[in-house]
Amino acid sequence: MEPSGPVAWAIHRAYARQSHLIDGGDAEGWAATFTPDGEFVSPSYDAPVAGTAALVRFATSFADAGAAQGLVARHVVTNVDVHRQRDDGSVEARAYLQIVTTGSGEDSRLVRLTTLADLWVPVADGWRLRRRRVRRDDQVLPAARPAADTTGSDA
Amino acid sequence: MEPSGPVAWAIHRAYARQSHLIDGGDAEGWAATFTPDGEFVSPSYDAPVAGTAALVRFATSFADAGAAQGLVARHVVTNVDVHRQRDDGSVEARAYLQIVTTGSGEDSRLVRLTTLADLWVPVADGWRLRRRRVRRDDQVLPAARPAADTTGSDA
Amino acid sequence: MEPSGPVAWAIHRAYARQSHLIDGGDAEGWAATFTPDGEFVSPSYDAPVAGTAALVRFATSFADAGAAQGLVARHVVTNVDVHRQRDDGSVEARAYLQIVTTGSGEDSRLVRLTTLADLWVPVADGWRLRRRRVRRDDQVLPAARPAADTTGSDA
Repeated sequence: MEPSGPVAWAIHRAYARQSHLIDGGDAEGWAATFTPDGEFVSPSYDAPVAGTAALVRFATSFADAGAAQGLVARHVVTNVDVHRQRDDGSVEARAYLQIVTTGSGEDSRLVRLTTLADLWVPVADGWRLRRRRVRRDDQVLPAARPAADTTGSDA
Repeated sequence: MEPSGPVAWAIHRAYARQSHLIDGGDAEGWAATFTPDGEFVSPSYDAPVAGTAALVRFATSFADAGAAQGLVARHVVTNVDVHRQRDDGSVEARAYLQIVTTGSGEDSRLVRLTTLADLWVPVADGWRLRRRRVRRDDQVLPAARPAADTTGSDA
Repeated sequence: MEPSGPVAWAIHRAYARQSHLIDGGDAEGWAATFTPDGEFVSPSYDAPVAGTAALVRFATSFADAGAAQGLVARHVVTNVDVHRQRDDGSVEARAYLQIVTTGSGEDSRLVRLTTLADLWVPVADGWRLRRRRVRRDDQVLPAARPAADTTGSDA
């Protein structure tokens, strides 16, 4: 069914907040926007990032990579579409996510645009992500790596 | 008068959804966000695109053009300002729309920024666009093409 | 405390509107989104811009600079996070602000990404900005200019 206005709005706010957390270097805060078993599935990584500890490491490595390159990185979220609430109360949403980086004294650079397909679940004090799937526009086959990359010749 | 919160919010969501429809290749779905006599007026085209059949063709040609160039194109909507409700219930809104394209293995490219001036009308199950006027920032005279382009020397 | 939905939403709309005002050349309208003693603090300027008259001059000079360079400039706001309401009713919010400029016949250019940290206060007919602090991603030390720039050799 169609999510109610308050539900859609709460999730809309969760997207904005989530970017400020990871971009501000709060890896634990960002990981806590997922359920304890939440997973982040992106073609940028060989395997899903699942569970709080792995999510914290993921966000920490994101911040470290920016610092090592002397770049400030931002997650710019737009087109948040909270489009369906399932019978179990979980909510499907999608959005665009642009990665923008800036070096000292330089113009900002739009690195890539990705599409998020998310499943949010209600908890006592709001909403948490159970699953995020990321599609990168710069990858023709976003859902899977070529077979040669993920299976050995003797698999 | 000032639109109510629920009205403004419903239209805000309609903007987000509309981009996902056209960018996802759902030409019929995108055209259905307009009224049956809805029109799309842009300086990029010689004449307004009016009516469902023409809107479907427009969205289809947008998708075909991207595919022919090997690009993924996105309509990134921001600054949605639902600013006025008329006495007849229709609602004026404006927003920024950025076109971002991405080729395989490349950085995303911000192609252009346009401003949307829209008139939304209430229907049984939500809101539909009756008229969209697009202004392109890269065109000094956005409302009209130079006369030389649209009239023959003997007109 | 957490701002209510209607409060957060009203402020969300104020952000969208504010950009249309300054980008549309309405310097007085933009200045009026601040309280009469409102201040705008940015590392781009030597001193805070404070009070309605100074804010009008600021917005006017922004428009004049764009016109002089033949550029259309836009304030693209995303990731609006209305995160805290204080006991006195004022509300803290933050957002990303991208500056995008476009010359005639050219691609749009993402010039910079900044982060806004704002304090909004309730007034009879809505919300006004009491203080805006801008952080530029292209500046390593956003809160202050190098000492050599702001103090004389005999200070």
